[in-house]
Amino acid sequence: MIGNLNHVAIVVPNLEKAKFKYEGILGATVSGIEHLEDHGVSIIFVKLGNTKIELMHPLGDKSPIKKFLEKNPNGAIHHVCYEVKNIKNSIKLLQKKGIEIIGDSSPSIGAHGKPVVFLKPKQFDGTLIELEEV
Amino acid sequence: MIGNLNHVAIVVPNLEKAKFKYEGILGATVSGIEHLEDHGVSIIFVKLGNTKIELMHPLGDKSPIKKFLEKNPNGAIHHVCYEVKNIKNSIKLLQKKGIEIIGDSSPSIGAHGKPVVFLKPKQFDGTLIELEEV
Repeated sequence: MIGNLNHVAIVVPNLEKAKFKYEGILGATVSGIEHLEDHGVSIIFVKLGNTKIELMHPLGDKSPIKKFLEKNPNGAIHHVCYEVKNIKNSIKLLQKKGIEIIGDSSPSIGAHGKPVVFLKPKQFDGTLIELEEV
Repeated sequence: MIGNLNHVAIVVPNLEKAKFKYEGILGATVSGIEHLEDHGVSIIFVKLGNTKIELMHPLGDKSPIKKFLEKNPNGAIHHVCYEVKNIKNSIKLLQKKGIEIIGDSSPSIGAHGKPVVFLKPKQFDGTLIELEEV
């Protein structure tokens, strides 16, 4: 079911400083900051040869990652995102196997404009998994 | 400096159960369990199209991930590993920029038989970064 690793998402306390670290210290190609108001996050992409790292910071009081940053004030890895070909089929298969999906189990449109769901971390060894249809 | 994402490492409380989840539920190709006594870890690789996930469990009382699992008994993402072409040059560049390397700043031979170093997480937004020469 899962294909490529689309990205690893890291919540950071300061996007400008994080941009400097990945660009100026680790020598990676880093995008400009995008503010995604509908998703409550500001993001930067670190472009690697085979995948990308998504650096995220809360945007607004209702940001879904606000509490995570409060709990991890120095930042921390937030989730990994795997690509799937057909998200509705993937959801059906997962539900048959008893896997719980966060929310109402129907895909929402993610930060990249594509259908996504998140799987409850307790089922996957404390790892929050996003599935994205590509 | 950093090239491809070599792997994401996840510490898990039970490798057999984790193998079942990634293979039987997420439909990924998963390797057999390898016991790396010199490194104090037992590992499984989840092979993705563009990179891999390394599922790790402590092996022996001196395992370097024993305390991490005690702190995160349900498991958690442990580190990300980026590839570099020349690890000694990378270490020199990082040290010039004031980055602290864990241990004595000289590369050790990692779980894949290649030279590696780990960078202190506090400098990279709570993310433990491994650099591996490939």
